[in-house]
Amino acid sequence: MTDIPALKANLEGIKVEDNPRIVRRKSRDCFWFSPVLKEQLDGVTGDLLVSPKNVAEIIRVHKACYAADIPVTARGAGTGNYGQAMPLFGGVILDLSEMAAVKDIKSGVVVAEPGAVMADIDALTRPRTGLELRVHPSIYRTATIGGFLGGGSVGNGSVNWGGLWDLGNVIRLRLVTMESEPQVVELTGSDVQKALHAYGTTGIITEIEVPLTAAYDWVDVLVGFDDFLDAARFSEELANMDGLLTKNIASIEAPLPHDYFQRHKKFIRKEQSVVVLMVAAFAMEALDGLLRRSPVGEVLYRSDRATAEDIEHLPPAYELTWSHTTMQCLRGDPSITYLQVRYPDENPLETIGTLQNIFAEELPGHLEFIRYNGRLIPIGLPIVRFTDKSRLDEIIQRHEALGCTIFNPHRYTLEEGGSKPVDAALLAFKRQMDPKGLLNPGKLIAWDHPDYKFDRDQNFLFPGL
Amino acid sequence: MTDIPALKANLEGIKVEDNPRIVRRKSRDCFWFSPVLKEQLDGVTGDLLVSPKNVAEIIRVHKACYAADIPVTARGAGTGNYGQAMPLFGGVILDLSEMAAVKDIKSGVVVAEPGAVMADIDALTRPRTGLELRVHPSIYRTATIGGFLGGGSVGNGSVNWGGLWDLGNVIRLRLVTMESEPQVVELTGSDVQKALHAYGTTGIITEIEVPLTAAYDWVDVLVGFDDFLDAARFSEELANMDGLLTKNIASIEAPLPHDYFQRHKKFIRKEQSVVVLMVAAFAMEALDGLLRRSPVGEVLYRSDRATAEDIEHLPPAYELTWSHTTMQCLRGDPSITYLQVRYPDENPLETIGTLQNIFAEELPGHLEFIRYNGRLIPIGLPIVRFTDKSRLDEIIQRHEALGCTIFNPHRYTLEEGGSKPVDAALLAFKRQMDPKGLLNPGKLIAWDHPDYKFDRDQNFLFPGL
Ligand SMILES: Cc1cc2nc3c(=O)[nH]c(=O)nc-3n(C[C@H](O)[C@H](O)[C@H](O)COP(=O)(O)OP(=O)(O)OC[C@H]3O[C@@H](n4cnc5c(N)ncnc54)[C@H](O)[C@@H]3O)c2cc1C
Ligand SMILES: Cc1cc2nc3c(=O)[nH]c(=O)nc-3n(C[C@H](O)[C@H](O)[C@H](O)COP(=O)(O)OP(=O)(O)OC[C@H]3O[C@@H](n4cnc5c(N)ncnc54)[C@H](O)[C@@H]3O)c2cc1C
Repeated sequence: MTDIPALKANLEGIKVEDNPRIVRRKSRDCFWFSPVLKEQLDGVTGDLLVSPKNVAEIIRVHKACYAADIPVTARGAGTGNYGQAMPLFGGVILDLSEMAAVKDIKSGVVVAEPGAVMADIDALTRPRTGLELRVHPSIYRTATIGGFLGGGSVGNGSVNWGGLWDLGNVIRLRLVTMESEPQVVELTGSDVQKALHAYGTTGIITEIEVPLTAAYDWVDVLVGFDDFLDAARFSEELANMDGLLTKNIASIEAPLPHDYFQRHKKFIRKEQSVVVLMVAAFAMEALDGLLRRSPVGEVLYRSDRATAEDIEHLPPAYELTWSHTTMQCLRGDPSITYLQVRYPDENPLETIGTLQNIFAEELPGHLEFIRYNGRLIPIGLPIVRFTDKSRLDEIIQRHEALGCTIFNPHRYTLEEGGSKPVDAALLAFKRQMDPKGLLNPGKLIAWDHPDYKFDRDQNFLFPGL
Repeated sequence: MTDIPALKANLEGIKVEDNPRIVRRKSRDCFWFSPVLKEQLDGVTGDLLVSPKNVAEIIRVHKACYAADIPVTARGAGTGNYGQAMPLFGGVILDLSEMAAVKDIKSGVVVAEPGAVMADIDALTRPRTGLELRVHPSIYRTATIGGFLGGGSVGNGSVNWGGLWDLGNVIRLRLVTMESEPQVVELTGSDVQKALHAYGTTGIITEIEVPLTAAYDWVDVLVGFDDFLDAARFSEELANMDGLLTKNIASIEAPLPHDYFQRHKKFIRKEQSVVVLMVAAFAMEALDGLLRRSPVGEVLYRSDRATAEDIEHLPPAYELTWSHTTMQCLRGDPSITYLQVRYPDENPLETIGTLQNIFAEELPGHLEFIRYNGRLIPIGLPIVRFTDKSRLDEIIQRHEALGCTIFNPHRYTLEEGGSKPVDAALLAFKRQMDPKGLLNPGKLIAWDHPDYKFDRDQNFLFPGL
């Protein structure tokens, strides 16, 4: 058993909290997106919430926990939706939200502490440099940059820059190891991959350097289509236009937009599938030109022509995209859940059409277009009208039979999530950074079961190391 | 015959020049890149050089020339290399280099007069906004923005933004018509295509609005390879990395770099093919990571580690790319010329390898990687060790037989150049803007020969209207 009083005494001077209700709340993330995880992880809680203010305090925490064999699970804002931040074996919740400084903004890059909220970083860089982060999750106004790097992968801006797996999107990381004498390790170049989307199992990220890109006035645009595949085709065409700058292109099938986009409902007919766009203000005339060429789309809303009242009350378009689409739907119907799908490289829209025929209302479509290895591809986040776990597995199998890869959001291990391979190089790095396996234990199957065979032929998003 | 004295009298107050030597010099561009054009166009000259200071003066020139049926050919810096700016039927050379104001720099866009030199525009926008032009020709320090839009197509930055044919790369144009009462016409959205790469035959561009993108410290990098196809493969891999920001990726076959890159020669062995890169400073560690993964490339030069002397004396890397590659070679060997090639979509490097086997030393390879309809493709600008015109035609035919499209730089008409279709919509616009056909006459075959049949199945770079 974890000797919490002894640990607390040991951490004298560092902010800690052991009120079980607060600790339990801070031990949860958005795992409830998945009905499967909701059942599995509901009882999970840590024992002590520790909120370090600097690296020296993290080192003290690690030293104490290493000596006493107490697990440490990093936490940013706790918005991960696969239970990434949930301490399966209790112990310390290492809350990094108070290490939120933006340390430097210089020639095209920003250096930040892990707890900095991504929207807050942009609020600083934009006025000073005219630049902003390349990619952020749709939960931009809440998620921390450390949590995004530790548990996220892709988001608004990925249509231009790909995901965290792409070399160059993260320049440098500083990490603290979990050892008897914790070290500070710096990673650059392709080495940063060792700590990205690793659920905090390979060290605690304490400093982050990422490139910035031009910040523009992004116009929120909703375009309606009577047919979801028309919406998808329009999205694909737009995504492939190299000069027409967008920051996000999402296609969402009817009746989801009308039924669940509460604030935007008034613009949308029930039978309309909607393409949600963020478009550079200066590209609006070009977008108009494109829409005149493919007249099946109807502009339902554009923020540059919205009333002052709408601008004040409507959420930004990015909060209709990525996992926010799911969340908007979940709010309207708690039985709803989702999947994450990569379609075959050749003619993805054809497969999407086939899936639509198979599943119809059970699986309304949601596509996000991203750059992937130099091409624009749709990633699927279809809504699932959930019945039970075995039907969910069946749906997954039908996808796989059509050549799709599923990044399963109903699994809390890295291996089963399926977007990043846990290979020998990652395990070697883990051994170096956390020899006792105390960081977020239970999330790497291959660590606990060295002879676990994961499928090397799978299509991961992140490269092997 | 053109009554020049009468015209001069008519243009009283506007700057004109009729010294035949000066007029002849200002009637020439870089047509001498082509031994074919060199022979055909050597005798071409205008009759009067007119340098307007503003739109009102252009209107006066047009009115006078319209009345007297005098041709008017726009000229920026005269760096076009297909004779675009050469007045086949004499008349007025309309020199726009004195209309060079940058009129506005605002939220991500710049508004400029046509005569502004592209490097000068960036020199103003960079310190004020941290932004720069998306794409510029390698002849950045000389070419005007009006000339680039009128006669160019693609260049440094196209690896990120494609070419002038891409909707969104030009926001707005203002043009003056050639009529009895010249009008000012404004084009936005996809309509701007009517005036782009039209050799000044559809009106004189007097104001340009284009988007800007983030300006970074670009590091010049030369990477050497013992095999040209390895260089091409490395370039292709790098081009397809969505997070690793470059501004240009060119592969140039041995022995060209060693033999003709005079100032960089000292870094290059004769048998080395060279990849010339512009890389964002903050992406250099990522590039190192990539080079460690594909260790066939050897970094020969990088400006961020160069001596002060080298930095002072070496030309910027972009002056080793695009038509500058050709020019560097031409300087060393005046018998050299070049082609412009688009390869088949599937496996372009395979076709490039085949061509290499066929032509060997006669046709050393030069590739530039650009974004095209959402994909990264190599455009070929192979050097041709020219013997005679019929052999050149044979080389072109061998390319076409392998599924390549040739944008023929040995032709001065738009149709034969082959990158932009001259369709009914373009001709209708021409009729509206220049009913008498006085603007740069002789460059549109379909204008002079309405039943001319151009090949609609060809792969143009610019879209039809
Ligand atoms: C409505 C909604 C929308 C979302 N949209 C997106 C999206 O568009 N794209 C996307 O990728 N994800 C998305 N997510 C998932 C998730 O929110 C993001 O990945 C988010 O960036 C996580 O940030 P956080 O601060 O909440 O991290 P947390 O949830 O607190 O942590 C995430 C993971 O990172 C680890 N971690 C946290 N801090 C550190 C650190 N300093 N060092 C090492 N490890 C650390 C944690 O242990 C955990 O495993 C969304 C989630 C929700 C609920
Ligand atoms: C060394 C070298 C490198 C080059 N690199 C590139 C490259 O990377 N990419 C590329 O695309 N090209 C390239 N070029 C070709 C050419 O230089 C460019 O297209 C260049 O931008 C032309 O600009 P300019 O000011 O010299 O125009 P000019 O040569 O003066 O004019 C070009 C054409 O535009 C017309 N024109 C000029 N001004 C106007 C106006 N205001 N309104 C209407 N029409 C007008 C002219 O009539 C002419 O037909 C290169 C040429 C050289 C010699």
